[in-house]
Amino acid sequence: MDKKVLLIGGNGYVGTAFREFLETRQISFQNLSRKDFDYYKVEALSQVIKDYRPDVLINCAGYTGKPNVDACESHKDECLLGNAVLPGVISRVCEMNQLPWIQISSGCIYTGNTPDGSGFKETDTPNFSFRSGYCSFYSGTKALGEEVLRDDANCYGLRLRIPFNEKDSPRNYISKLLRYDRILNAVNSLSQLDEFVKAAWQLYMNDCPKGIYNLTNPGSVSAKDVIDMIQKAGLSNKEFSFFENESDFMAKAAITPRSNCVLNTDKLVAAGIKLRPVEEALEWSIKNWKAAQSAGV
Amino acid sequence: MDKKVLLIGGNGYVGTAFREFLETRQISFQNLSRKDFDYYKVEALSQVIKDYRPDVLINCAGYTGKPNVDACESHKDECLLGNAVLPGVISRVCEMNQLPWIQISSGCIYTGNTPDGSGFKETDTPNFSFRSGYCSFYSGTKALGEEVLRDDANCYGLRLRIPFNEKDSPRNYISKLLRYDRILNAVNSLSQLDEFVKAAWQLYMNDCPKGIYNLTNPGSVSAKDVIDMIQKAGLSNKEFSFFENESDFMAKAAITPRSNCVLNTDKLVAAGIKLRPVEEALEWSIKNWKAAQSAGV
Repeated sequence: MDKKVLLIGGNGYVGTAFREFLETRQISFQNLSRKDFDYYKVEALSQVIKDYRPDVLINCAGYTGKPNVDACESHKDECLLGNAVLPGVISRVCEMNQLPWIQISSGCIYTGNTPDGSGFKETDTPNFSFRSGYCSFYSGTKALGEEVLRDDANCYGLRLRIPFNEKDSPRNYISKLLRYDRILNAVNSLSQLDEFVKAAWQLYMNDCPKGIYNLTNPGSVSAKDVIDMIQKAGLSNKEFSFFENESDFMAKAAITPRSNCVLNTDKLVAAGIKLRPVEEALEWSIKNWKAAQSAGV
Repeated sequence: MDKKVLLIGGNGYVGTAFREFLETRQISFQNLSRKDFDYYKVEALSQVIKDYRPDVLINCAGYTGKPNVDACESHKDECLLGNAVLPGVISRVCEMNQLPWIQISSGCIYTGNTPDGSGFKETDTPNFSFRSGYCSFYSGTKALGEEVLRDDANCYGLRLRIPFNEKDSPRNYISKLLRYDRILNAVNSLSQLDEFVKAAWQLYMNDCPKGIYNLTNPGSVSAKDVIDMIQKAGLSNKEFSFFENESDFMAKAAITPRSNCVLNTDKLVAAGIKLRPVEEALEWSIKNWKAAQSAGV
């Protein structure tokens, strides 16, 4: 049976990937961009749902800060609005209309790894949030966003983490490593963007239990691991330079601390959703790399 | 010279007190209520300022929860929107228009008292906030609201705390004590509402330094102290009953913890603003008590 999707924020980095996925699969959708539509208005959003009658809503809108999360420190209200208020508004509207929906959440509400090295589970309390006392303002708002949705039984809260694929983009992790002057060598779980989108769709189509999912490729890699792959594949011959450590990075390049963390993907696997191991997904993306036309940097 | 005031949220409990103050003094004002005007829109609010040309903006809008802060736990997005996003929006607009403004902040971002018993100063880090780990959702959003305004050089952030005056109202502390079935005997600083409003106006008119002020009547009282005054004045002859302690209160009557705290008013006094000692303001309000017409409770 054909599905109809209501997409919110389908013009951003993640939203574009969802749009392209739906277009390729010839799945009908309507895209609400903030420029054209005030999706913060409960009544207006509810009316669109009544008119368009979607089967599922996907919210890709959020405030990430440009060029990076440091910008959130000086745009705190917009950051709160996009990451914590908006999920609440959509949650209310979806509950009123009995509509299942997908929220793009984030793994950046953790820092580090669990003592046993197996990564943070969905049931672990965020340790990089306002409530934990230490975080960036961005991560604080994303953790509040999950808190706002805690009682939502209609929602898939899917934690994306440092997206990448084979297409050059300012938001792509591989592009960032290629362009940054100096790199912090941290260990992270990552999400191959197109696998993320496909998995999100599968969770919904397979009627998997609603709730929070760490939606990253299994495993974790250090920035140096990825640079090794980039160099082996001959994608760049530049001399990569590194910060000594996190304090060096904070002192020289950042306003607010970054989340670097490892997530556990057992829940996703148990739901029957398979993503390639992170190394495989990275090697494939690097091998099939498409530099942006305009990339003069 | 005559002043013009742009009032936001002038129909609420605090807003009405400001409206009445301005009317009595024959100070011109325009009141923006959310019903008629979307003051979350930077451009729209900015246009009003360009058209009306106020000398000062006073924001009385905020989300407090009805009948009490427990309601904030189930309306998290609205609570964040009213208490943390809105101050940020107004701050941006006032900066663009070089307009001084007053934000009604709250002392509920603290719990308890300082070790020396002198009350929390404006420079003390909130200990009842998301960042401190323990708080109500309401207090968390009010603390975020102050964080959003940290770099605002145009703003008076005035911390109101448990308002009361001689007029019966569901938001009046004396009314609450008269009507609650059972009372938690906690010690608090309080703000006599009309003195709060007058002091806010004085801070602005006297061109006192901008920033955060604890705007409460000097001193602190326990709920039992106030009930003693009520009984002595013959305002009620009911048998008051009390919770054993805070855990008893939490178990029997509350969803989320309450802030009970003592604030230090030295900064306000140093700015030359004088409020009556809290006992005096309470005794006066009880002596001049005006029961609401509709008070059948």
